[in-house]
Amino acid sequence: MQASETVEISGHLMDSGILSRVLDDIREYGGDYIMDKFDVGHDAHDPSHAVITVTAEDDQALQRLLMRLQTRGVNQVDPGEASTAVVEQDGVFPDGFYSTTNLETRVRLGGRWIPVDNPEMDCGLVVDGADDGVRVFTLPMADVRAGMTVVTGASGIKVVVPLPDKEDGAFGFMESDVSSEKPQAVLVRQVADGMREAKASGRQVLWVGGPGVVHTGAAPAMVALVKAGFVDVLFAGNALATHDIESALYGTSLGIDLAQGRGVEHGHEHHIRAINTIRKAGSISAAVEQGVLTGGIMHALVTQGKTFVLVGSVRDDGPLPDVYTDVIDGQRAMRAEIKDVGFCLMVATMLHSVATGNILPASIPLVCVDINPATVTKLADRGSSQARGIVTDVGLFLEQLAVELVPGYRS
Amino acid sequence: MQASETVEISGHLMDSGILSRVLDDIREYGGDYIMDKFDVGHDAHDPSHAVITVTAEDDQALQRLLMRLQTRGVNQVDPGEASTAVVEQDGVFPDGFYSTTNLETRVRLGGRWIPVDNPEMDCGLVVDGADDGVRVFTLPMADVRAGMTVVTGASGIKVVVPLPDKEDGAFGFMESDVSSEKPQAVLVRQVADGMREAKASGRQVLWVGGPGVVHTGAAPAMVALVKAGFVDVLFAGNALATHDIESALYGTSLGIDLAQGRGVEHGHEHHIRAINTIRKAGSISAAVEQGVLTGGIMHALVTQGKTFVLVGSVRDDGPLPDVYTDVIDGQRAMRAEIKDVGFCLMVATMLHSVATGNILPASIPLVCVDINPATVTKLADRGSSQARGIVTDVGLFLEQLAVELVPGYRS
Amino acid sequence: MQASETVEISGHLMDSGILSRVLDDIREYGGDYIMDKFDVGHDAHDPSHAVITVTAEDDQALQRLLMRLQTRGVNQVDPGEASTAVVEQDGVFPDGFYSTTNLETRVRLGGRWIPVDNPEMDCGLVVDGADDGVRVFTLPMADVRAGMTVVTGASGIKVVVPLPDKEDGAFGFMESDVSSEKPQAVLVRQVADGMREAKASGRQVLWVGGPGVVHTGAAPAMVALVKAGFVDVLFAGNALATHDIESALYGTSLGIDLAQGRGVEHGHEHHIRAINTIRKAGSISAAVEQGVLTGGIMHALVTQGKTFVLVGSVRDDGPLPDVYTDVIDGQRAMRAEIKDVGFCLMVATMLHSVATGNILPASIPLVCVDINPATVTKLADRGSSQARGIVTDVGLFLEQLAVELVPGYRS
Amino acid sequence: MQASETVEISGHLMDSGILSRVLDDIREYGGDYIMDKFDVGHDAHDPSHAVITVTAEDDQALQRLLMRLQTRGVNQVDPGEASTAVVEQDGVFPDGFYSTTNLETRVRLGGRWIPVDNPEMDCGLVVDGADDGVRVFTLPMADVRAGMTVVTGASGIKVVVPLPDKEDGAFGFMESDVSSEKPQAVLVRQVADGMREAKASGRQVLWVGGPGVVHTGAAPAMVALVKAGFVDVLFAGNALATHDIESALYGTSLGIDLAQGRGVEHGHEHHIRAINTIRKAGSISAAVEQGVLTGGIMHALVTQGKTFVLVGSVRDDGPLPDVYTDVIDGQRAMRAEIKDVGFCLMVATMLHSVATGNILPASIPLVCVDINPATVTKLADRGSSQARGIVTDVGLFLEQLAVELVPGYRS
Repeated sequence: MQASETVEISGHLMDSGILSRVLDDIREYGGDYIMDKFDVGHDAHDPSHAVITVTAEDDQALQRLLMRLQTRGVNQVDPGEASTAVVEQDGVFPDGFYSTTNLETRVRLGGRWIPVDNPEMDCGLVVDGADDGVRVFTLPMADVRAGMTVVTGASGIKVVVPLPDKEDGAFGFMESDVSSEKPQAVLVRQVADGMREAKASGRQVLWVGGPGVVHTGAAPAMVALVKAGFVDVLFAGNALATHDIESALYGTSLGIDLAQGRGVEHGHEHHIRAINTIRKAGSISAAVEQGVLTGGIMHALVTQGKTFVLVGSVRDDGPLPDVYTDVIDGQRAMRAEIKDVGFCLMVATMLHSVATGNILPASIPLVCVDINPATVTKLADRGSSQARGIVTDVGLFLEQLAVELVPGYRS
Repeated sequence: MQASETVEISGHLMDSGILSRVLDDIREYGGDYIMDKFDVGHDAHDPSHAVITVTAEDDQALQRLLMRLQTRGVNQVDPGEASTAVVEQDGVFPDGFYSTTNLETRVRLGGRWIPVDNPEMDCGLVVDGADDGVRVFTLPMADVRAGMTVVTGASGIKVVVPLPDKEDGAFGFMESDVSSEKPQAVLVRQVADGMREAKASGRQVLWVGGPGVVHTGAAPAMVALVKAGFVDVLFAGNALATHDIESALYGTSLGIDLAQGRGVEHGHEHHIRAINTIRKAGSISAAVEQGVLTGGIMHALVTQGKTFVLVGSVRDDGPLPDVYTDVIDGQRAMRAEIKDVGFCLMVATMLHSVATGNILPASIPLVCVDINPATVTKLADRGSSQARGIVTDVGLFLEQLAVELVPGYRS
Repeated sequence: MQASETVEISGHLMDSGILSRVLDDIREYGGDYIMDKFDVGHDAHDPSHAVITVTAEDDQALQRLLMRLQTRGVNQVDPGEASTAVVEQDGVFPDGFYSTTNLETRVRLGGRWIPVDNPEMDCGLVVDGADDGVRVFTLPMADVRAGMTVVTGASGIKVVVPLPDKEDGAFGFMESDVSSEKPQAVLVRQVADGMREAKASGRQVLWVGGPGVVHTGAAPAMVALVKAGFVDVLFAGNALATHDIESALYGTSLGIDLAQGRGVEHGHEHHIRAINTIRKAGSISAAVEQGVLTGGIMHALVTQGKTFVLVGSVRDDGPLPDVYTDVIDGQRAMRAEIKDVGFCLMVATMLHSVATGNILPASIPLVCVDINPATVTKLADRGSSQARGIVTDVGLFLEQLAVELVPGYRS
Repeated sequence: MQASETVEISGHLMDSGILSRVLDDIREYGGDYIMDKFDVGHDAHDPSHAVITVTAEDDQALQRLLMRLQTRGVNQVDPGEASTAVVEQDGVFPDGFYSTTNLETRVRLGGRWIPVDNPEMDCGLVVDGADDGVRVFTLPMADVRAGMTVVTGASGIKVVVPLPDKEDGAFGFMESDVSSEKPQAVLVRQVADGMREAKASGRQVLWVGGPGVVHTGAAPAMVALVKAGFVDVLFAGNALATHDIESALYGTSLGIDLAQGRGVEHGHEHHIRAINTIRKAGSISAAVEQGVLTGGIMHALVTQGKTFVLVGSVRDDGPLPDVYTDVIDGQRAMRAEIKDVGFCLMVATMLHSVATGNILPASIPLVCVDINPATVTKLADRGSSQARGIVTDVGLFLEQLAVELVPGYRS
């Protein structure tokens, strides 16, 4: 039996192309729609407002379509109360659980709108406590436990999509697409401004990096940025840390080879020996304390008291003792460090960029720099719609960023 | 104090370009050389033989250079006896440990040449037992335990690089480089022949796959190949299995969307709901038994009694209950399944391809198929020199492979 | 002094994202707008209708903005009469000339709407004759002559953007983007259907090809398609023809090398010798007649009486005697062959694909096949909005297309 | 009947990998070989010397194989006298004509070795004059005329491959491959040094550029380099000049859009209007004189009295009046400007880079900068073996190059 619901959305519906995507979603889920009302902004700065009745073949299909539409900021006109169910099995959500977005979300319980603590996509919503003490927070599937109360269906939920502020938006620099043909110097300045603003407002700058940071010769620039206070947290894998440490210990990347401008490929025994050395010391910070590790990015992070979370992958050698070999543990460690982040820069890594995009709220500005357009595209496709991409050379980009942010760098 | 050693290498030195890379290595490690002898093959089929004296600034540098050269099949003329040291700390090799290649290797102990059990790159060599019962095997760093005896330095070791048989080599089809401009139909046939030969000799065919197998619409072709017995083992991540199961449960990829030729990007809730369904069932095979999962690649593997190893990554949602979340455990599970492999096909995944390349002996023919040339290049750069790459469309390639190998497919 | 004009647009404004691009254009040209009216389609199949007042800083800026908007199908509510000016200098349009789109266009002259003969983008509109005999046609800048009458400004012009028919559209298969992760077999079938429909309606199939057709081993498939009547016209450069002829004469690509699956790079003397041989014969068809050229794609085109237009580029060797060395002459020759085209397939060439996209009316279905996503993206960015892209292996794609279209092929 | 010849080659045969390619060539041409002698360099700096007897199925095949080997610097031990034939038909070489390399070449005539005037690949060798006045020069096929005397076969010819000087080579920075993972700052400095050296020795710096120079915001950097004397000649197409002029006239690229860091795609009427404006003026330099064009790269070249050669392509609109529409005429104009070139930088264009690579002698240092690795690879594959590639962001690269070469730039 067909089921239908009336939904609404406000914002710059036309010039953001969002409505087009909403209607695509309805079609994709086999649904249909009637446009009940469409109030269009009179002039360029006014928001528009649409009311749409969507129909699906049955209530289950409708609920899923409604959840899907909420990822676009489309909410029910009459949201009603949220319904919940109790988890019966560890690590398994109840059927029909509400699957989250990374947007600001509120849940209607007992007639009140409760804000969700930590927006993260593809999680469930756990309801904890009752009455005045009620709290709603996201929880990934692996962490849910029997007995917990979880929201089901799309009723009683409101999702807020931020209005893109086209006029003076700090990070509106690459609104529609990804391209290597952009005036890069302007972009460097905009990233620098984003970092300065985050710091000025007392928030942290999160970096997500791949080994390309070391290979492109950008380690000195990044070290300068760590020392100048523009790297509060680093998320990376075994490779970035290993290549950085290998350079510091044997000079392979930064010594002979980088000085002559020639790259070194894997297969040499340097990296495995570097890992063994750190394992012997016990940890990266122990190696710094023991005077074994005396330079590079990881050294700078340790001596400046900054945080790093290294999460392993199936292709890792070793790994370094600091690496989380369990990826779910690694995700938990990453989640623990994003609370105060006010700006995120992703450099030269697809795997860790997507992983970080998965757990970051959409409200945190996020810039992805890679020479490969696919990395940037992938990130946006995975749901990190706030991601801005810069397709450029990582080495020159970080060099320019250091010149912009670190007084006296290269002078 | 300078140290030197005389080494030798045999084979098609010139037409394989190997000597050029050997001399590059010497330069990269800051060494020098004198070419003592060079006997060149008289005609095109004769091997050449070179004797080279290499010099480094001290013995430690020399030992490392010698280990490096062994990755090219360059051995000491007078190898002497292998030296060993005892492991003092779990998970840490002794200083100067011998770092392995993925080539056939022998170790001289007590005047005898002991073959290494399971060649794998970037491991240590553990010596177990004594006299007639002595055994040498590779062990990754994470698995080494205090008290074990491990080979150090490059003495007493012989590495055999197989002579590439250019005339009639089964997999000589892409000797020098990676290109999208190759006559693909011929390559399909050669891969089919490689699989048939492996099966005919009683060995297994290993597949390593990424989610692109599902996205390109190749799942039916792969199911047919599973049923026809050409997929014995599958290594993959959470994504391939999830997208395959999502297609089977909701028809998202293979139903509505694939039938209309339109792709679906992440962000929809299908995949997270598919994972939840399997977690509720307990495992993929339990879901098959319970009649929850009734089609697709994973279903075919389960019903045909085939093996799969799924190893997670930091970007995973869920994950599926069958996924190893600890990557080191995952590597161990993969190692346990490669003993009887006689042919390996890697399709549409860089992460798991590199991971598999890390643990496979160089003697196993390995073909990597991807639309992105970088995946194929990366694999070879990481040391899997036996890798042959095909840059092509994965969907059409597997379709053609099924037509070639499965009687009655698409007719 | 500010100038303004009221414009309107109809169609599936929201789900095509077109309105978003219209508003971007206004902003890009420094203009502003007020949305006077917006009638939204009530259900999914109804078109919407918008009336917008646009403002620019002066009339000249306004006229240019209006022309820009017409490329999106936005027309003046009160178009008035077209204004014209007389060309004073050969090859130079009057100031303020109307710059065309590739869409169906009408011009209001003497109170009547005159349809434009041959829509082509970036041309001028020449008015010829008067009263009942008046005719309006596009003319590229290089061909305009002093004394001709040319339309200026945006008044008196109507442009019709076709409603994309999402439900059953023959070539709606890749509506929004370009991706290598698509179910390719479906796409092959859709291209085959498109060619069959064109032929069934008495129209021609135009191919635009690069040398990759030969390098990927697809020449036999293309020869079969020529013989089966699915290649009426070929646009290409010197390279496709030369590599094809080289293969036929020396077997370099299709003989030794293709049979063994190895590519051959430039630098060989084969290609220059092949060109010399054809120059000696006088032309490709003369070489066929003299029995010099006995196989391959060009041979098939000649013997089947099909048309080809080869246009040179600055990197050409030779070139072949059939190649237009003057690119403007080449464009004229191409224009002369597109009159009856009902379907266009572009394979493995960016240069000639963009060139053909420049002159094709938007009404002709156009599919671009390339292993490089950039080629497909570029084409759409250049204004060929009807272009549908397939990122896949050219060799396997044409092989499958021949299986689909040519009875008995490969059986 | 089999034919054979004894050839020799000297140089760093092993560590350049050249011998491997020579033996591949022999196999590719269906030939066979016997290695008669191989004197290997004793230490790392000594050259090696090989003598090889090659065999082919008949003399014609042998001659073609010998010509092929000469592209590698392999010459006949007993070269004998060059044979010649008289051209019978305009634009057609005699059968068996010697096809040239871009290397230093000498021809033995009347017992003397005559140096070839202007090495260029894929040309014929014309012998002009006699006795003491004899002269040998390359001529492309299109320019040969009946009655000329042209060298045939491979006898009597010596080709000199320069010894790559690995120790202190000015442009040895990227010896083996193309990669985006290189320390780019070092590379910028090396290119700067190359330009300074060329200027110091009284030679010219040739730039070959695509429109990406303008799109990436690098025009100001390039203007500064023109003014500082580091751009003597520019080879480009219609697009670079048009986009540059469009920016200067309408500020589209450098004004509104570049300042905001957003790219602009084709389809706008700006570019076609910019072309019309210059056509009206008569030429780019006339537009400068008339005060119509007052900024940008083309303006800088005109006011600094520098040379540019613009050659058209089939996708061009307009084109600008300065553009050669006949590509063979364009090639001739380019040839006329390379006589004094001492350094060549290619930026962001595949078409014109390959075209320039075709006519440049191998003795001129050549660096190719592009964000797309395929452009760089293509150039080397086409025979420009001296090409060094830098895969990086063009905008940031030229910015850094200007900082390096122009005192006071950006300070």
